[in-house]
Amino acid sequence: MELLPYLLDLAGTFVFALSGGMAGVRHRLDVFGVLVISFAAATAGGIARDLLIGAVPPGAISDWHYLAAALAAGIVAFYFPSAIMRRAKAVLLFDAAGLALFAVSGASKALLHGASPVMATLLGMLTGIGGGMARDVLLSEIPIVLRADLYAVTALAGAATVVIGDSLSLPAAPVQICGLVLCFGLRVVAIQYAWALPTAKALGEDRDG
Amino acid sequence: MELLPYLLDLAGTFVFALSGGMAGVRHRLDVFGVLVISFAAATAGGIARDLLIGAVPPGAISDWHYLAAALAAGIVAFYFPSAIMRRAKAVLLFDAAGLALFAVSGASKALLHGASPVMATLLGMLTGIGGGMARDVLLSEIPIVLRADLYAVTALAGAATVVIGDSLSLPAAPVQICGLVLCFGLRVVAIQYAWALPTAKALGEDRDG
Amino acid sequence: MELLPYLLDLAGTFVFALSGGMAGVRHRLDVFGVLVISFAAATAGGIARDLLIGAVPPGAISDWHYLAAALAAGIVAFYFPSAIMRRAKAVLLFDAAGLALFAVSGASKALLHGASPVMATLLGMLTGIGGGMARDVLLSEIPIVLRADLYAVTALAGAATVVIGDSLSLPAAPVQICGLVLCFGLRVVAIQYAWALPTAKALGEDRDG
Repeated sequence: MELLPYLLDLAGTFVFALSGGMAGVRHRLDVFGVLVISFAAATAGGIARDLLIGAVPPGAISDWHYLAAALAAGIVAFYFPSAIMRRAKAVLLFDAAGLALFAVSGASKALLHGASPVMATLLGMLTGIGGGMARDVLLSEIPIVLRADLYAVTALAGAATVVIGDSLSLPAAPVQICGLVLCFGLRVVAIQYAWALPTAKALGEDRDG
Repeated sequence: MELLPYLLDLAGTFVFALSGGMAGVRHRLDVFGVLVISFAAATAGGIARDLLIGAVPPGAISDWHYLAAALAAGIVAFYFPSAIMRRAKAVLLFDAAGLALFAVSGASKALLHGASPVMATLLGMLTGIGGGMARDVLLSEIPIVLRADLYAVTALAGAATVVIGDSLSLPAAPVQICGLVLCFGLRVVAIQYAWALPTAKALGEDRDG
Repeated sequence: MELLPYLLDLAGTFVFALSGGMAGVRHRLDVFGVLVISFAAATAGGIARDLLIGAVPPGAISDWHYLAAALAAGIVAFYFPSAIMRRAKAVLLFDAAGLALFAVSGASKALLHGASPVMATLLGMLTGIGGGMARDVLLSEIPIVLRADLYAVTALAGAATVVIGDSLSLPAAPVQICGLVLCFGLRVVAIQYAWALPTAKALGEDRDG
């Protein structure tokens, strides 16, 4: 049964596209711009991974279901932004689910294409956070994943779980579920308690010399 | 006769490089920076398309005529920006021609490489608008194609024409001419009448709930 | 003996990652963001080159030593930014060495993969300056290599030396050393005397019409 992961992947695409579309609306883009940002936010991570492992054309553009999911989310974001805003907490939860899913599926796909453990972990994380980075770069902002709370690290944890399980020759499905739960759980707890990584000190504050 | 499309492609490269060079001049880049922006604006769309369909190395860097066309335009923009400004209307028309050409040739090349109809349409549009997006991202601005008037949509129309014609097994040359005329015509009319797509409402204005 | 070029490559990675990490610290990123910028600044040029010549997966992600070198530099930048600032002149020299090395090794790798002379020169330069461009784009700034002093041009000189030597069938090692010395020397002199390329005039100042 390959149907469930596929449907989850499409669901992740939809949720990430929502976040992209909302960002586009905040910047007062036109409807086309909102759709482009939606598509970029949903697919840039997977496209970057596929280019780096040589899996061309990337699934996100060769399978039109991804485009359809991203466009549907973009249209929702364009016409009903307030409705999404009112459900911000729910969107954050869905986003955490999308992140977990993309990190785990990204690492798995990289392993399938012969990536080394370190590389598969990096590519899993990139699959999870690449879309948000593309969204912010296109909107001329410093990517929020580089500045704010525990986000990319949870993707790293999910991807690493898959890679470690693979190295130990554990069965794939339960390992993937562990990775999903770990990433999603960490992310939810980080949201709940506003966990964040340390920020660089202002220059001059360190006492190393 | 492959010469005509090739010459048109070089002409499109020159015009897009002009727009890139002008943007670089506006941001007071040095002469090298202006040339880089010229080259990026002229070739990023085609390079992205080629990477996504696996056609490496991309034509824009393996054939030095593209580099020469882009550099020539960059030098013109660097030394004679006022002359270009005075011919802004003409530049807009040439830009519309370049857009039409890139969208049509981009979709055609994607089909040749076995892209699906949806993917070929997307890649044709990307070929047309990718350069302008790269130009604006490098200059730390939100890409104007995401914000302003009817631009990307006309590229989409041109690319879709090629793909539909291909699906119906119509002869390629007349279909491509139709795509060119449609994209160019739409774009000229959009410029003339300042047609634009609807912009996202300010948040809070929608009445969906 | 392939060890020396490899060690030099890792050294270049470390120095470029330092510059990326310092930029991240200046923008008050969190520790993860600093590491990402370090890695991007050190590897984006080589990754872009490898994607464009079809050498996937890129060495920078398939060989974990590059990741380790970049992360080590990022951690140093995060915890001891003042110590680096006090050695700014030394960092500039190391950066010049990294630039020379990346430009020369980038051009050589492109030639090995069958790139034409013009393309190999471009790709050598891209290998040298791509990391700095990625760093600045991610931090939402116009890449400094497009605006400031003699930087990219020295990379171009180093790459061109390699390509010219190859065209004349000269032995590779001495030619590469010439390229390194030329790029590094030019860069050091440019830093010493604050050489810069001409900047675009403000619009309206030219007298071409």
